[in-house]
Amino acid sequence: VDGQPATSVPALDRGLQFGDGVFETLRCEDAQPLWLEEHLQRLRTGCLRLGIDWQQERAARNELLAAAAHAPRGLLKLIVTRGDARARGYAPQGDERCRRILLRYELDRSAQSTAPLRVGLSTVPLAENPRLAGIKHLNRLEQVLAQQEARQEGWDEALMCTCAGQLISGSMSNVWLWLHGRLVTPALDAAGVAGVTRRVVLARAARTGTAVVVRTVARTEVQDASSIYLSNVRLGLVPVADLAGRALAPHPQLEALRRGLDAETA
Amino acid sequence: VDGQPATSVPALDRGLQFGDGVFETLRCEDAQPLWLEEHLQRLRTGCLRLGIDWQQERAARNELLAAAAHAPRGLLKLIVTRGDARARGYAPQGDERCRRILLRYELDRSAQSTAPLRVGLSTVPLAENPRLAGIKHLNRLEQVLAQQEARQEGWDEALMCTCAGQLISGSMSNVWLWLHGRLVTPALDAAGVAGVTRRVVLARAARTGTAVVVRTVARTEVQDASSIYLSNVRLGLVPVADLAGRALAPHPQLEALRRGLDAETA
Repeated sequence: VDGQPATSVPALDRGLQFGDGVFETLRCEDAQPLWLEEHLQRLRTGCLRLGIDWQQERAARNELLAAAAHAPRGLLKLIVTRGDARARGYAPQGDERCRRILLRYELDRSAQSTAPLRVGLSTVPLAENPRLAGIKHLNRLEQVLAQQEARQEGWDEALMCTCAGQLISGSMSNVWLWLHGRLVTPALDAAGVAGVTRRVVLARAARTGTAVVVRTVARTEVQDASSIYLSNVRLGLVPVADLAGRALAPHPQLEALRRGLDAETA
Repeated sequence: VDGQPATSVPALDRGLQFGDGVFETLRCEDAQPLWLEEHLQRLRTGCLRLGIDWQQERAARNELLAAAAHAPRGLLKLIVTRGDARARGYAPQGDERCRRILLRYELDRSAQSTAPLRVGLSTVPLAENPRLAGIKHLNRLEQVLAQQEARQEGWDEALMCTCAGQLISGSMSNVWLWLHGRLVTPALDAAGVAGVTRRVVLARAARTGTAVVVRTVARTEVQDASSIYLSNVRLGLVPVADLAGRALAPHPQLEALRRGLDAETA
């Protein structure tokens, strides 16, 4: 916490009180945090959007690098909250000091890479709010409920849609669909988290001449997809084997993207 | 924290990690928490809706009663989180143990009761999610952003609407409108918090023969309201004096409800 060994945070932290903060989950390979600058940029963007006065990027970068050195293959979670609630009520006072909370996890790569992914469509909607869409903020109850459902249903991941019936993402991943001969990923203007892996895949697709259509995707279109892939920093880009009982196949172009990504991160 | 004096909580608490919990704000008068059973009931309902295994109501009640004895006129905030994140990721394991976090605040009644309320319409939308609507959960970024805006605009409170243009509530209050000769308060099926004071006012209105229409209210209808009142446990039921520059008058029937409520809580 703030660069010091700790197991607790003040009970007045606004992250606890209101979910008032953002976070990043980074993967470490060979004692280096992958896509560090992309993560730091999203953190910056998230703080800006929430009006959080984030001036600790240098400290955060150093701490992430140091933590990665101790977790050659692992995950780092960096939470940045607005700081302590210095008065009662939701309103920030404007002079809070951010708090950095860094957690380190072992990454069980053998368990994650082999099993075919089983996915279902969640009954938990993703609420639409353009003011919060795209950023990785700490208000994650929808994802908690969706994963609760996934666990009960025996899914590895739950696809989530808005109340209006637009597919947005998985509960912990972005989604890629092969639809009528085109690679499509949902737009995230109204809901969802713009994943760092999503961004890396989009950049790689652009470099390698693979067209990706970023647009609103209706829930009903999921049925038309011949291949569905998920992406996040932990999994990379991975094919869904089973969607609500329907078998799905990998797709050559997505497999090429996947191999490129794996080579980049190996 | 869990009945013990403390100033901190574990950094792994799911309230901090995901906003995975609920809270109540109670008012104390004469060393008693007002509407204690109503608050405990909403807490129970919230935990049930989130799948939180809440078995500590007796301890919570005793702690609230004891804290009220030390805060004759104050506010108590009770946060209940699902407990610690015992594994990485959003999914609860199912055997978490809830954490109770109780905060005590002085209530400055002189400052709150005299000034006429200035209110504006927030540009921050309230996202619609029936799965979370009504309960007082810890995902409160929308309210934080709305109060940030209110502070910048010089408002005492910000009225909030869905993206679809339905008026739901204030950022920290429920709302009552005198519209074309009828008392109306927004339905909370899609968004908003079902306030304990709202519930008490509805019950009092029913007892005293004051008809209240609970329905969806369009944002545009705010302009037609001749009187607007706000309710929460801290303020009680109070008239808005100024809505975005338009002067509003108190209304006899709402004033009668207000006096009844004040008598009940004095």
